[in-house]
Amino acid sequence: MDADNLIKSHITPVVLCGGAGTRLWPLSRKLFPKQFIPIVGNKSLLRLTLERLRGLNSVQSSSNIVCVAAEDHRFLVAEALEQSGVAGTVLLEPAARNTAAAMTLAAVSTAPDATLLFCPADHYIPDADAFTVMVREAAQALTDDTIVTFGVVPTFPSTAYGYIEMGAREHAQALYPVSRFIEKPVFQRAHELISQGNVLWNAGIFLCRAKALIAAMHVHADDILVRCRETMANASYDRQFVRPGREAFLACRSESFDYAVMERHANVRVAPFKGAWSDVGSWNAVADLTPADDAGNRIEGDGHAINASNTFIHAPCRPVVALGTQDMLIVDTPDAVLVTTREHVEQVKHVVAELDRKGRPHVALHRKVARPWGWYDSVDAGERFQVKRICVKPGASLSLQKHHHRAEHWIVVNGTAEVTRGEATFLLTENQSTYIPIGEIHRLHNPGKTHLEMIEVQSGSYLGEDDIVRLEDTYGRTTEKN
Amino acid sequence: MDADNLIKSHITPVVLCGGAGTRLWPLSRKLFPKQFIPIVGNKSLLRLTLERLRGLNSVQSSSNIVCVAAEDHRFLVAEALEQSGVAGTVLLEPAARNTAAAMTLAAVSTAPDATLLFCPADHYIPDADAFTVMVREAAQALTDDTIVTFGVVPTFPSTAYGYIEMGAREHAQALYPVSRFIEKPVFQRAHELISQGNVLWNAGIFLCRAKALIAAMHVHADDILVRCRETMANASYDRQFVRPGREAFLACRSESFDYAVMERHANVRVAPFKGAWSDVGSWNAVADLTPADDAGNRIEGDGHAINASNTFIHAPCRPVVALGTQDMLIVDTPDAVLVTTREHVEQVKHVVAELDRKGRPHVALHRKVARPWGWYDSVDAGERFQVKRICVKPGASLSLQKHHHRAEHWIVVNGTAEVTRGEATFLLTENQSTYIPIGEIHRLHNPGKTHLEMIEVQSGSYLGEDDIVRLEDTYGRTTEKN
Repeated sequence: MDADNLIKSHITPVVLCGGAGTRLWPLSRKLFPKQFIPIVGNKSLLRLTLERLRGLNSVQSSSNIVCVAAEDHRFLVAEALEQSGVAGTVLLEPAARNTAAAMTLAAVSTAPDATLLFCPADHYIPDADAFTVMVREAAQALTDDTIVTFGVVPTFPSTAYGYIEMGAREHAQALYPVSRFIEKPVFQRAHELISQGNVLWNAGIFLCRAKALIAAMHVHADDILVRCRETMANASYDRQFVRPGREAFLACRSESFDYAVMERHANVRVAPFKGAWSDVGSWNAVADLTPADDAGNRIEGDGHAINASNTFIHAPCRPVVALGTQDMLIVDTPDAVLVTTREHVEQVKHVVAELDRKGRPHVALHRKVARPWGWYDSVDAGERFQVKRICVKPGASLSLQKHHHRAEHWIVVNGTAEVTRGEATFLLTENQSTYIPIGEIHRLHNPGKTHLEMIEVQSGSYLGEDDIVRLEDTYGRTTEKN
Repeated sequence: MDADNLIKSHITPVVLCGGAGTRLWPLSRKLFPKQFIPIVGNKSLLRLTLERLRGLNSVQSSSNIVCVAAEDHRFLVAEALEQSGVAGTVLLEPAARNTAAAMTLAAVSTAPDATLLFCPADHYIPDADAFTVMVREAAQALTDDTIVTFGVVPTFPSTAYGYIEMGAREHAQALYPVSRFIEKPVFQRAHELISQGNVLWNAGIFLCRAKALIAAMHVHADDILVRCRETMANASYDRQFVRPGREAFLACRSESFDYAVMERHANVRVAPFKGAWSDVGSWNAVADLTPADDAGNRIEGDGHAINASNTFIHAPCRPVVALGTQDMLIVDTPDAVLVTTREHVEQVKHVVAELDRKGRPHVALHRKVARPWGWYDSVDAGERFQVKRICVKPGASLSLQKHHHRAEHWIVVNGTAEVTRGEATFLLTENQSTYIPIGEIHRLHNPGKTHLEMIEVQSGSYLGEDDIVRLEDTYGRTTEKN
């Protein structure tokens, strides 16, 4: 059968990019959660998700992917879209309100007949073709009022996932009725469920017409639907970003779509997925993505396992040696180290809570911070100074800005900078430098075709990121303080 | 009894500062071994040793301490002497030839009747008073031809130390005859030895007249004695540094004093020491210097133990989290991390060998490198640039120098710099900067009363430490390449 015939209507993917960054700390942080980390072959899970969805429709239509994401992460999403070659729309949630609200926002802002595929941004599904075939078959079998969820055929008695029990299938259809949804079980119960042979892992992937979702929300969670309609009625538009109304959304109830609709709705179906799948929900799951050597050690980067077994080392920036360890996970980052056991890995969120309580910045921020124009890395700091390495993408510009409390020395170490300082604009190339006094208006622009790298030495009595007055910004950040 | 009467002759301490830096990697490195690491309350073991010896003679005589050290470590020794308020002489070994040669060098370069106390630089003996009393009592009982060794009363059946079996003591003398020296035993044997009640740990501390040592060497290892005499006959003198002749010493046999003399010599005595003592010979021993909490965790710096027990964390520079670990040691440094178990800690030397085989600089060098004028820390580096934070002590100067392959940008972030650049000399204060082109002669001097801190951005095709031409140097390094 021709691929075009497999699909009855165009599918619009909706990628749910919400999700906090606590389980994979210190690699994930509040401002740089799991879905944005380059975790598989230097690509992020979001990017892999977008690339997987790019091939979903037989005629590639790059404009139809919708991402629902937090305001704080908008540039990370924009960059992933760009890197994947997908020009999507980004719906910016003013706050996290869980999947029911996020999915409803997308549904009310599209055509009622549109077929929507909702996918979490942070799942790992290596076989994109198998995934595409499954979705297309489900789309073909989809009716106007059904909501389909995809379930993963379990490979072991996991206690980390919820389960879906399938009912008896009529004829040879692609979709099964759902008998019931089962909460995350204890191990013994998981084992029993697997033995039944008719359960699937609940993967949180859904397919339905926009109008089916809206109708179901109207019946089961009308308050959320009302808030979401109100929110979208007050939306503003800023290039690829859509900013829903803030107040209505803040008043919205936080609920998962599973709980709000799926567990209550009559007309749900489930499609089994036999391919490999992981929600990459813990360091154990991340470790499993790296091949093991004969001793079961899994090494990323500059890790060295000596007389060690079943040890995972994530060492992107310096040598990390595990000597004689067993069943351990060692995660190094430029500014924080985690050493834990395979058994305790689920408690990483307690670590984050503990550090948060102590007011440590390592919970929210990485040393290296992504910006729409590139990134900066705080490589050294003292009492009245700070040293940053700044990288500006070709063609990109920082805002026209000034600082009240710090002067800056700039030294170009790679590429070319176009510097605006007061009334003057001039070029600096490798090994040239300039000085920006306190209060002086300035701007940094990369006019070249290669990355611009610069060392910035800040000097002053206060060096916080919020000492910035933005007079003009390419990325619409003039009212932001960081 | 008056303290002056306790001692019959002046004692000259000889501090043996040799010793490689493999067992406490990554904190110790070849160029920065154990004895120089600030390990106890921010003081190094060498400094604590010097401070302990400072009070040895009742009339303080600061000029009589002799240190025997490697050429590479001379500025580290000089700094420890200065910090301890002791103006000693530093005998620089052209190569490591173990204790027999090191001790003989000191003996042949002093008066034959001098009473010498040989102490390793890297032992931890917290009760300096008890140590002083023991040494003074032994000195009082010392004859012209006896060699006394001090033994530590054992507190557990250690397998890490050699043992000394005491013979029966005549009357109530301070010194016991030695029945025999016993190699490091296995655990069961150590247990039996301890049960005997008449054994001591061999601590490698010796007391004798210079002539007694020379006489014993003449009998038991005359070749070493001959080489050492020849070596000292060719010595040159450079302020506090004494440089013995290189070729004769390189031809010298490498042997421990225990093996060369003590185990063969008739006229040896042993004095028991009841105070606390540790040779800080492994990470377990270092961990034991830090008090344990209720769960047995020992935390230094920014370490966090969560649901962990018996875990040691050394975290001087960033948060290090141990979650659910047991009997582990985690050692973080700016450029390398070690995670090991209490059981495997003796294998750290294998780690160093492995990294050495892989040609990693982390075996020899720290990111932060001590210099006679202060230190530098390589905080960032890229393909054609390097960023260093440089700290210059008050009054200190770097050499008058030039580089063939790199230009340097200097930005003062603390204190005042006096810069010589070509023909010009000028001052820079906080937030001022200058540029040193390739090939330009330059010098950095701190004329102030506080530390000078500077950020240096190096730029060029080759950035190795050996691209330096020293035209003039306060510390006699004009012929050195780093």
